[in-house]
This record gives sequence, C-alpha cells and structure tokens, in this order.
Amino acid sequence: MIGEADLIDKKLVMVPGPTNVPDSVMYAMLQPMIDHRGADFHALYSEIEANLKYVFQTENDVFILTSSGTGGVECAVCNLIGEGEKVIVPVFGVFSERLAEKIRRRGGVPIEVALPWGTAPKASEIEEVVEKEPDAKAIFLVYNETSTGVTVRDLPQIGRIADENDMLFMVDAVSILGGDHLPVDEWNIDVCVTGSQKCLACPPGLALVSVSPKAWEKIEKTENKPMYFDLLKMREYASKKETPFTPALPLFYALNEALKLVRREGLERRIERHKRCAEAFYNAIDALRMTPFPMEKENRSNTVIAVNVPDGVNESKVREIMREKYNVLIAGGMGKLKGKILRIGCMGVVSQMEVLMTVNALGNALKDVGYPVNIEDCLNAARKIFQ
Amino acid sequence: MIGEADLIDKKLVMVPGPTNVPDSVMYAMLQPMIDHRGADFHALYSEIEANLKYVFQTENDVFILTSSGTGGVECAVCNLIGEGEKVIVPVFGVFSERLAEKIRRRGGVPIEVALPWGTAPKASEIEEVVEKEPDAKAIFLVYNETSTGVTVRDLPQIGRIADENDMLFMVDAVSILGGDHLPVDEWNIDVCVTGSQKCLACPPGLALVSVSPKAWEKIEKTENKPMYFDLLKMREYASKKETPFTPALPLFYALNEALKLVRREGLERRIERHKRCAEAFYNAIDALRMTPFPMEKENRSNTVIAVNVPDGVNESKVREIMREKYNVLIAGGMGKLKGKILRIGCMGVVSQMEVLMTVNALGNALKDVGYPVNIEDCLNAARKIFQ
Repeated sequence: MIGEADLIDKKLVMVPGPTNVPDSVMYAMLQPMIDHRGADFHALYSEIEANLKYVFQTENDVFILTSSGTGGVECAVCNLIGEGEKVIVPVFGVFSERLAEKIRRRGGVPIEVALPWGTAPKASEIEEVVEKEPDAKAIFLVYNETSTGVTVRDLPQIGRIADENDMLFMVDAVSILGGDHLPVDEWNIDVCVTGSQKCLACPPGLALVSVSPKAWEKIEKTENKPMYFDLLKMREYASKKETPFTPALPLFYALNEALKLVRREGLERRIERHKRCAEAFYNAIDALRMTPFPMEKENRSNTVIAVNVPDGVNESKVREIMREKYNVLIAGGMGKLKGKILRIGCMGVVSQMEVLMTVNALGNALKDVGYPVNIEDCLNAARKIFQ
Repeated sequence: MIGEADLIDKKLVMVPGPTNVPDSVMYAMLQPMIDHRGADFHALYSEIEANLKYVFQTENDVFILTSSGTGGVECAVCNLIGEGEKVIVPVFGVFSERLAEKIRRRGGVPIEVALPWGTAPKASEIEEVVEKEPDAKAIFLVYNETSTGVTVRDLPQIGRIADENDMLFMVDAVSILGGDHLPVDEWNIDVCVTGSQKCLACPPGLALVSVSPKAWEKIEKTENKPMYFDLLKMREYASKKETPFTPALPLFYALNEALKLVRREGLERRIERHKRCAEAFYNAIDALRMTPFPMEKENRSNTVIAVNVPDGVNESKVREIMREKYNVLIAGGMGKLKGKILRIGCMGVVSQMEVLMTVNALGNALKDVGYPVNIEDCLNAARKIFQ
C-alpha cells in the first residue's frame, strides 16, 4: 500500500529528519544477514568505526546504538549522571526541555538556564551559572534546537568553560553533525550524540555516541546504568568489534555506505554545501516576505530552517497543499510553537534542486491559500546563492 | 566489501537469530522515507499493530520499539519495577541471568530461583517461592533460554499462579514468539516481549512488547522511567498511530511485510513447521550420536537446538569448517557453556531444505575433524520427519 503503486506521487522529504536517503545507501540494506559475532560483522564494524571518527573529528571512542537519537541522548544521561548530581542545561526549545526531563528522571538535578525560544545560550550566560553553581560538574547542551531552528554558535566557548572548570561537556548534536562545524576534540566535547537519519542521510534507527577519556573516568564510577545503554558494556564488546546486543544489521550496512559518501564528498565540502543551501532558503524566505524564527541572524541553523507563519495563514493547510499538490513534505512547529512556525529540513543530500523544489512548493502553496507571492522572485533569490 | 562480490560464498544463517530473511521482507525496506508524523506512517503503524495482535494472540496493547530484544526486556523491567520491589526470576541460563541483573540495576530485588542450566523451572517450584515471598508482586520469566535451548513448558501453569496471586507476569519471548505456542491472553501474560529477528524472520532492530490492563495499572504508578522506554509515552503516541521518537522506518516496513507472511501462512501452521523442523534436527542429532543439552525431552526448544559437543571435538573448529567449507553458520555456547555446546537456530523461514543443509554441513564438518559420521544415515533420520 505504501510506495509501490504510488511512485508517481513520490514525495520530497524536507522535514527535519528523516531525510532523503541516496539509493546506494538504501540498497546497502539488502546485503545478507550475517552472524553479528562473526568475522564479516567485525569488518563492517571496523569500517563504520573509522569513518565515524572522521565525521566526529575525534580520536575518542565512538559507538553505534540500535536506537533513535533520543536513545543516544538517554544513554549519555544515564552513563554520566548519578543520583542527586547537578547538571547545567540551557533550555530553549522542545529538545532541550526533553534533555532536562531525562536528567530529572535519572535522579539528577538539572540546573535549567531558561531562555526565550528562538534564542541561543551565550557563553557569558553559562559562565555566570557555572560560577553560581560550583557543585554542578557537567554542562549538557543541545547544539541545534530542531524545534526552533537555532544553532548555538557559542558552543566552542562553552566547551572551553567546561574544560577550564573541569566539568563534563555533553552535546546533543542529533540534527546537525555532518551538516555544520563540530570538531568534537577541538571543542572539548566529552560525549557527543547524533542520529543516523539527519545530516548523514541514512535511514533512522541508529544513534552514534563519542566518549572522551574524561567521560570514561566518570562512567566507570556511575552506578545502576540500564543494561541496554551501558557504555562500559559497549566498550567491552567494541574491543572485539561487536555490539553487546543484536545490532540492526541493515542499518549498519546503510550507515557504512552513508559514511563512505561523506568521506568521498569530504566533510568540509559537505558542511559548506549545507551552509549554501541554508543561505538560499533564508534568501527565499526573505523574498516571500517571511521571517526566520531565530531572533539573531548568527544563530540561524544551517540544517533546520524555522520560519514564522505569516498572519492570517493556516500553516497546516499550507503543508497539506505542499504535500498533496506539490509532493514536498515539510514540518510544522512543535510544543508551544505548533501552528506558529514552519520547519524545513536542510540536511543530508540537500542541493540546489531540493531547495528550489521546496521554495517552489512553499511559494505556490502560500499563493493557493491567498497569500500574495511572486514565485519567480523567490526562486531567483534562492538561485543567486548558487551562481 | 561485504556481500556484493561474495554471492558465491553466500551463507545459510542458522544461528539463533538473526535468521534468514525472505526477499520480500528485505525489499520492503526500500520503500521511501516518509514523515513519521504523517498519514502514510499512520497507515503503516496501524497495519503492523493489527498483525502484531494476531501473532501475540492478544487484545492487549502492543508497541514497536526501535531497539534490540534486550531493549524490549529493559523496557518491561523499568516500567514494571520500582525501587526495592521484589520480583521472582527463575535463572537457568545467560538471558535469565541478564534479566535478574537488569532488575538489580533498576533498583528492584530479584528473588532468583537458581536452576541447573539445561533444566526449566517447574510450576511447583515457582509456587513454593510465591508462598515463601508474599511481598513479591511479579514473576519475570524467560520462556525460551536461547543460551541452553530450553523452553519452559510449564509457562501456562506459571501464568495461572501469577494470576491467582494477583502478581504481574512478564515473559521474555524474544527467541520463540511466532515459532511455538504463546497465546498471550489465554496464558495470563501481562507484558510479553519479542524481537524482530528471530521467529518472525525480519531483520534485527525492533523489539515488540504487549501490555495488559493489569500491567497498565502498575505502569501508571511507576516513577522515573527512562524516557526512551516510557510505555506511557508510547501509549500516548500510539493513540495517533505514531511512536514518541523517530522510528527505524526501513525496519517498520520490513516488519509489516514479515507479519503479512506470518498471516498468510497462518500462525498454527507456522508453529507446526517449527516443531517438525526441530524434530528433524533432534533425530539427526541422535543419528550423529550426539545429545541435546536440555536434560528433559519435553523442555527441548523447537526454535534453538542446543547440542553437547562430543568428547575430543573442538567445536570452534567444527563451526569454522561449517562456515568456510560448507557455508552454514551456527553458534557456539555462551557464558559458562562456551566450548561445550553448539546451538542451531530453527527459526523463521526454516524448512526441510535448511534442516538438511545444516545437518549435512554439521555431519561433514564433524567428519573432517575425525569424528566418525555416516552422513546419509543422519540425513535420512532428519528426512523421516518430513515424509
């Protein structure tokens, strides 16, 4: 019922993950089932591991979890935090709210730095909290708030603050790693988490986690980790190039191919491509007389484009028209931003073609609901970036 | 490097999961990425949900988790058990040991009923412990010990004991559901967990969990569940035919197709097929002058065939020859059974063909290491069952 008979209605997936997946990554999933305790798997694991270190720009250990990105963040929380331990968490959207909630459920004490949605935490704000809370031993930060389209540009400075104060620095980079700058070691990130289905252009179902030596010191002392997310167990099995529990084999094959594509393109070129596509989107948004949701230009994300819905426009109608008439999927707002913003994924295989198709679909759908648009002007505004 | 150029060396996967996956299930993974908050996903979810209820033989709620089977068991543990709560757990192999360990890590108190490996708990033994431990409010049981090839044939009686004593009954059915009898409602199972990659013949990466109304009462009161495994969140999203976090889409497509194949065959016929294949294996084992590891005939598993390694035979050499020369993968022992037993998966698409190929490979490999075997006798012993 899905896909097969409906190829004529194939959709361009421009939600902020899952994203469009290259054919070679899809077909990689067809490779045969193998014993996950045997030599073929060991070879597969080793290849993925090496290429993950490349995209994370790290010499730290890296792990592949059979779970969504949220599971990866959960893993970081329950390995790094014990009962009653304080963690500084800037909260500026749905995913940073979730992060604080996870810490609370784990028995930790999130010191929440509440910021208006659409803004990003500044290093100076974090520094102030660090001084006020000397017994907080960790900073947990969402680098790219998928719910607001905000990227924390002060991340390197915040990493330095963590380092100077001997605090652990955990970064949720689910919707950004591979699509914007994130040199894990250079920026002092102890645990970095991402997902397979965002900027790496792989299907969803795997979380990827890096762990620094400083993080290991803490993890070795953390008690009562849920077995499924126990990083010590993962380290033990990783020494044999295995996972503690049965891995999602087709997704491992897909990730291996997706990472090879990243290597072939080169990480820097890939990041530059994401940046240009984002600029093209923001130019077109401007030509559409719409405004980005993030309040400061420098914090606008290159991977999730969040846009205010113009007065009098029904965003869910716009998305429905985009989907049904123009075959492009974008997302609406989450949580308290439901109905107020639109969100476009600018991730993975995104190129001029996807940008222009999306701008065209958005412009036409807006026109269809009575919002005056000059489509050609909008497309030209986007095109300018690619010339 | 894997699979593509090596089709001539394709292996028959007879480990106790992952198992061989039908082509139509593999190709189902190629269906397009979709928005997991959109109508196409809702339709996919509904289909899977309906067919899961069929294979679980339940009217309870069922959920699909992006995790291995172990993650599903972890989910059961942290939703059903609070700090200091007692749980009766028969321990008779690696997976029941893990279950007790998970309970301990969760802060619960496992009342372990330690049994010799190769045996299964009896209803009378459980009843005794229930009487001695009146404040234990749950029984957690591994139905099929993948590590010893033992199936707990007293499961229905144990379910009745749980019911009569108003205790919760959780069953780890990872390596058996779909391959042997397991009417979840009829047998009073409150939470039943299985994995995608065993008897359902789907690739690994999904756990499947059923939840009874009695279990919900407890879950609603359980505090501090890890967010990723929170069944209340899953129930909330399931009402919209969604998952709380990004689902592993290709595996959902695969599971949908795999469940359709189960329906087409019919659950009863599928179980009967597993049983006959297991009988053929046990007949051949006998003709090979080898003995099953389970001590009592009635507890021999129909899905995992565990066999004692004959004196003087190096089992890892036998498996290596089977793999490299005869292209059949089987498993060795786990934990303290390492080197002492061989384990064969009898799961999913298993038929006369797979049984005979495996017996042939095993017989020849044994012969190659100097263990005298009459291959034709062994094959005939297996064939007899299918005539």
